[in-house]
This record gives sequence, structure tokens and C-alpha cells, in this order.
Amino acid sequence: MSTIRHITLPAGFVAAGVRCGIKTSGEDLAVVAGEREVSAAVMTTSNQVVGAPVLWCRRVLPQGFGRVRGMVINSGCSNVCTGKAGLEDAEAMATETARLLGAEPSEILVASTGIIGQPLPMGKIRKGIAMAVGSLGWRNDPAVVRAIMTTDTVEKSAVVRTRIAGQPITIAGIAKGAGMIAPSMATMISVLTTDANVAPRTLHRAFAAAAEVSFNAVTIDSDQSTSDTAVVMASGRAGGRIARGTAEERKFSAALTEACTAMAMAMARDGEGATRLVQVNVTGAATDADAKVAAKAVADSPLVKTAVHGADPNWGRIVMAVGKSAAKVVPEKLSVKIGGVTVFARGAPKKFSSRPVAGHLAGDTVVIDVGLGLGRGKFTAYTCDLSREYITINADYHT
Amino acid sequence: MSTIRHITLPAGFVAAGVRCGIKTSGEDLAVVAGEREVSAAVMTTSNQVVGAPVLWCRRVLPQGFGRVRGMVINSGCSNVCTGKAGLEDAEAMATETARLLGAEPSEILVASTGIIGQPLPMGKIRKGIAMAVGSLGWRNDPAVVRAIMTTDTVEKSAVVRTRIAGQPITIAGIAKGAGMIAPSMATMISVLTTDANVAPRTLHRAFAAAAEVSFNAVTIDSDQSTSDTAVVMASGRAGGRIARGTAEERKFSAALTEACTAMAMAMARDGEGATRLVQVNVTGAATDADAKVAAKAVADSPLVKTAVHGADPNWGRIVMAVGKSAAKVVPEKLSVKIGGVTVFARGAPKKFSSRPVAGHLAGDTVVIDVGLGLGRGKFTAYTCDLSREYITINADYHT
Repeated sequence: MSTIRHITLPAGFVAAGVRCGIKTSGEDLAVVAGEREVSAAVMTTSNQVVGAPVLWCRRVLPQGFGRVRGMVINSGCSNVCTGKAGLEDAEAMATETARLLGAEPSEILVASTGIIGQPLPMGKIRKGIAMAVGSLGWRNDPAVVRAIMTTDTVEKSAVVRTRIAGQPITIAGIAKGAGMIAPSMATMISVLTTDANVAPRTLHRAFAAAAEVSFNAVTIDSDQSTSDTAVVMASGRAGGRIARGTAEERKFSAALTEACTAMAMAMARDGEGATRLVQVNVTGAATDADAKVAAKAVADSPLVKTAVHGADPNWGRIVMAVGKSAAKVVPEKLSVKIGGVTVFARGAPKKFSSRPVAGHLAGDTVVIDVGLGLGRGKFTAYTCDLSREYITINADYHT
Repeated sequence: MSTIRHITLPAGFVAAGVRCGIKTSGEDLAVVAGEREVSAAVMTTSNQVVGAPVLWCRRVLPQGFGRVRGMVINSGCSNVCTGKAGLEDAEAMATETARLLGAEPSEILVASTGIIGQPLPMGKIRKGIAMAVGSLGWRNDPAVVRAIMTTDTVEKSAVVRTRIAGQPITIAGIAKGAGMIAPSMATMISVLTTDANVAPRTLHRAFAAAAEVSFNAVTIDSDQSTSDTAVVMASGRAGGRIARGTAEERKFSAALTEACTAMAMAMARDGEGATRLVQVNVTGAATDADAKVAAKAVADSPLVKTAVHGADPNWGRIVMAVGKSAAKVVPEKLSVKIGGVTVFARGAPKKFSSRPVAGHLAGDTVVIDVGLGLGRGKFTAYTCDLSREYITINADYHT
């Protein structure tokens, strides 16, 4: 039997995914742990309403970084809008996991995803934690990634290997998320592990930079979850400390960004009802912030997304979406390419052969380039097309 | 044969709608004119990319108000992204209409709606203007409203009668718009007429206030057109001048708001693919601006709109949408009602019988109340549910 490994590839980590009966089928609880204490950084949703597990993570790592032992994650119930009892449940998940690992509750991060407003079935959860900790190892990574999935249709993981200061290092990650993924960190959970030797503060800086252009660049439907959590843990087993402000840090940051971007693109491609990945590159903006605003406006536009779904080279909707954004736009300097073909240049439509452009739009990956012609600001956003299937998934999903 | 009158009910106005062959079927050009010069106010899109007719209206009325003779409108082609030639075409529409009415081009407003990036078929347009001016009268209001429609499935008009300072006055309006209607004034065109005796500046002030809580409170899909134009014209034939800062002005403003709100609600109800109107009332916000931001976040949320479409009392999505907005939110003070039934109170789910709530969500008009518990700010936004039909309309519509 072949075993696909990702999250436990970096030395120093063990994991397990088990079924404890929260979801109607499949694995629904996972534990990812360091063999001993590890560096950690965490990013959580910017929604003002947040789940109890997010509050717990912020209590464990108030600055977003520190030393932890591991993480427990469940799917099927998000423990959001559950009041004081919900907070006690999140803490109990940490306490139980810590007890079995021989760690402190304050060393255990928690994430939950699934339906809002329901109490966690704590009996099942406790059994699940015992099963998971009892089966921690290197052989069940596929069960771990399945245990964090909700409406995802494919497993999402990434492995990046590089050499830093002569030492080979590995970064691995798993992710879930297919809907409600927008402006910044939506119903997505991602856990990354690495054997890199990096202090918590430096790890956090690299992770924030990576998340900005990856997880925070994904939008499925402009909605934003109350539960998003991304965690990276570093065991330090690779040796060769990565110090702040060095070339090593830059190289590590680039590798971490690569892993996060691969998972972000996988999430966009697996957006609810999606039939294709859409990459929106904005360049020439007055600032990077403007580029982000413009790229998100295009990526969030239902009219652009339905045009892509219909494989219609409707550049007018792209121009409309850029124009409605808060980014500085000078219509006479605006250019648009679809699949590399210029369809609109410096404020005027450009004659193009519609067949190859429609062919590109009907493909697996659609690339839209928007040039604002104003400066050097740039940003790339990732999204998907908008299909009838999105409506089916979200209108027929009942609470 | 009965004749439905609206736009020409106020004394002093004539109108005509004709077919000149821009659209594949039906009327596609209209002229609405004062019998002589009238007070006018105009509101146009806040998109940074605007059509040539919008630029023309801003040239005719740089402050948004003044004296005009009338307006010419076509559907089927929006004259957007058409460069210098497009501006000349918009001006030519005004010039031709003015010539036939015996007025100046600078007294004629222009609006166009339809596909972006195509030149206007000026031969057809000229013929249409000649036909329309030749048949101006009081008997063809239905043709006028049909001539401004694009993907609308129903004709939208409103008539409000009131007495101001003892004088009966009439306000009438027609509107089109079913998609790309969002944050502020999207592919919507509305023309209102009144016999009230009101100076341009006062008319503009009343119209801006009315538009803020009506047209600017509608969102279909968060996209925003490059062509939105709303115009009100006042003939003064009712006598009894409405002076600034008086009780008469307040009464007129309220009546104008009533007419605009009726049309805004009709637009939301006729949103592309819509099966029901959704009214989102936010109260208790720190400020009115916060209330608007929160109401729009709920009204724009694809997850809320699909839940409404599925008649699912998924209050978690409403809470999520409020939380992701830029409005100040304190989760512990947040309450939500659906159809008058409290489903979430002061930060916690409330037990409710789901059958009547689901029944309300399956009805014609859905009312969502969000209480922020922070202050006295309030705003009501109008939208519709999000259905497979929206995707069909917008994915299958080809440029």
C-alpha cells in the first residue's frame, strides 16, 4: 500500500486523522503535533464575528507567534456563535489534546470548521482526540487532510523542498476551503509544517508575507468566514538557524510563499461549483494596495465570473469591475488582456479574434491581465468562475 | 383601448417610445420632453469608467441641476468605451433631438443602456429620434417605458400624488434595471417628471436625498454599471412654489423619495434571476454610514442570497456578512430577525420554530432585520435572491 505523505514529511512532526462521527461520513478530526515543542505562527480571520477556536488561538498566541506543541482540528461543526459554552468547548479540546500529549493546554492550537451556531458534540470530540493521539504517526497523512475538509471536492496539499545555507529543508502543508473565501482569510484552514530552524517571530514575518499574496489573494464569493485559521509550525530539525534579515530568511520566505500559493490556487480552483481557476493580474497601479483592490474587484465580480463561466470574452465587465473599485483608475490608461490577448488598450476596445480568446476562457486556467498604466503597484488575485452549481450547493445546503 | 399613463401624467410633459432597430425586437428609443423648459436634476454612476452619455449629462449640468428641455434615451447599446467617436455620437443625439424640438443641444440630456464597446448605430438613432419627436404626446407611456428596458422582465413605473400648500401635485417615474445594480447607481435608468414648481437647486437636493435611500440602496449583484443615470424634471405647472428649507420642501422630498423607493424596490424584485425581493433593515448602528455598509454587506452576500433562494433560515450567514463589513460590530450586541422572528439575540442563537421562518423566506418579500445595538444609525438595502437563472442570464449572454 503506497502512502502519500505531506504534512509529516518535515522531520519532527506526527499526525493523525480519524472519524469520530461529527460529519455524516468520513474523517472529521485531526491532530498535528511536534514530537516536541515547535515554533509556530498563526493567522486568523479578519471577520469581526469569530468562532471560539479563533479566540482560543489568539489567547494561546496573542502576538500571533510563539512555541506550541501541536494543533487539533475538527470539521462538521465550526463552534461559531456558541457563546461562553463554545469557548469552554474550544478550551476543553486543547486541554484534552494536551493531556494526552503530555503538554500544556496553552501549547495547543484549535481550529473548527463546519456549520455555525451548533454546540460541538464534545463526547464524540473527546473520543476522536483519544483515537487521533493514539494513532499519531507518519503513515496517515491522507486521513489528516480528509479530516479537515467540508465542501472541498479534492484534497489540497503542497510540498516545497529547498536548500538554505547548504541544509535541505522541507515545507509541507494541507488546506481546506472551497466557499466563503474572501477578502482576507475565509473558511479556510491550512496547516503547514517545516523542519526549518526558525524562531517564532521570524516565522511569523515570513508567514504574514506569504499569506498576503496567497491565502489573502483568494476570493470565491466575496464572503468571509468566521473561522479561518492558518498555522505554520517549525521543528528546527533541519539545523542551520534562519536569522532575521538575512538571505536565508528571504529564501525561506519565498519557499513558504510558494507552498501557500500552491494551496491558495488549489482552493480557488476547487471553489464551490467552479469549473476553472481564474488568475487576475493587476499591474501598473499607483500602489500595491490599489492593485489589490482592483484585482479583488475583478475577481469578486459576479458578472465577470459568469462571463468566464460562459467563456464569453466580455471585456466590458472587466473594465466595469475595475472602474467600480476604489483603486485609482484613469480610463484612458486602462488595458485588459484575456489569455495574453489584448482586448482593450489605453481606454479603447481593440479588435481581436474572439475564437482563441473564447477557447482560453473555456480552458482549465483563465488569466486576466489588467494594466492601469499609472505606476508600479501590482497584485494577483485568484478566484473561479460562477456556475449554477454554486447556487445549487449553497441554496440546497440546509441548516 | 385603455392607456396606462405615468410619465406624462404631470402637466407639462410629453413623451414617445419608438422602435428604430437597435435591439432585435421592441421599442428601443424614447424622448421625454417638457412642453417648454423645465427644472432638472441628474444623478450619474460613481463608476470611474463612464459612458459617453454620462459625460454628456455632466457637461450639460455640471452641478447636477439646471434648466433643460428634455431627454433622449436608447436601449440596446450603451455607448460606453467608445472613445471620442462615442462622445460625438452622444452629442449628436442631443443635437438632433434639440433641433427637432426647437431647443439647444445643451438643453437635452442623453442616456444609453445596453452592450458596452459597440458604436451606436447612428443612422437608426437619427430615424428613431425623428419618429419619437414626431409622435410626442400623452398616449404612449407604455412604449416609453418599454423603450428603456434591457433584461427587465416587467415595466417599472411609479405615480405619487400629494398636496403641497393646498396645490395637488403629481410625481411620476419610469425605470429600468435588473442587473449590475450596486453600490451606487448601477445599470439603471430612471426618469421622473413632476408638475411641482421647484427651482433646480432645490429639486437637486430633494433628488439626492431620495436617491440615497432608494436607487443607491439597491444591489443586485454588487456590480456597478458605467451608465447609470437618474433624472427628474419639474414643469412648475402645479403652481405654489416650493421654497428651500420649508415644510413644503420636506413634503415634496418625501413624495419624491416615495416614488424613487417604489421603483428601487421594483428593480430589486426584478433582479436578474430573482424570485423574491429581500429587504435588509439595519438599525442600532453607530452611524447611518455604518448601517449602510452593514446592510449592503448582507444584501451583497452570495451566501445570504443563496440561503434565501433555498428558503433556509441560515442566520449564521447573515451574522458572517455583518461581521465581514467595515461597520463597527460588537458580536455580543448583535441581533437578527428573519420575517420578524428573532433568530439571534445579543450574540447568541435563539431557539425558533423553523417552519414559519422558512415559510417567510419562501414568500414574495423577505425581511431581514439586523440590530447592532450600538447607536441610532439605520439604513435599509434592497436586493433579491441569487438563483441558477442569474447564472444562466449572465453566462449565456454573449458579447
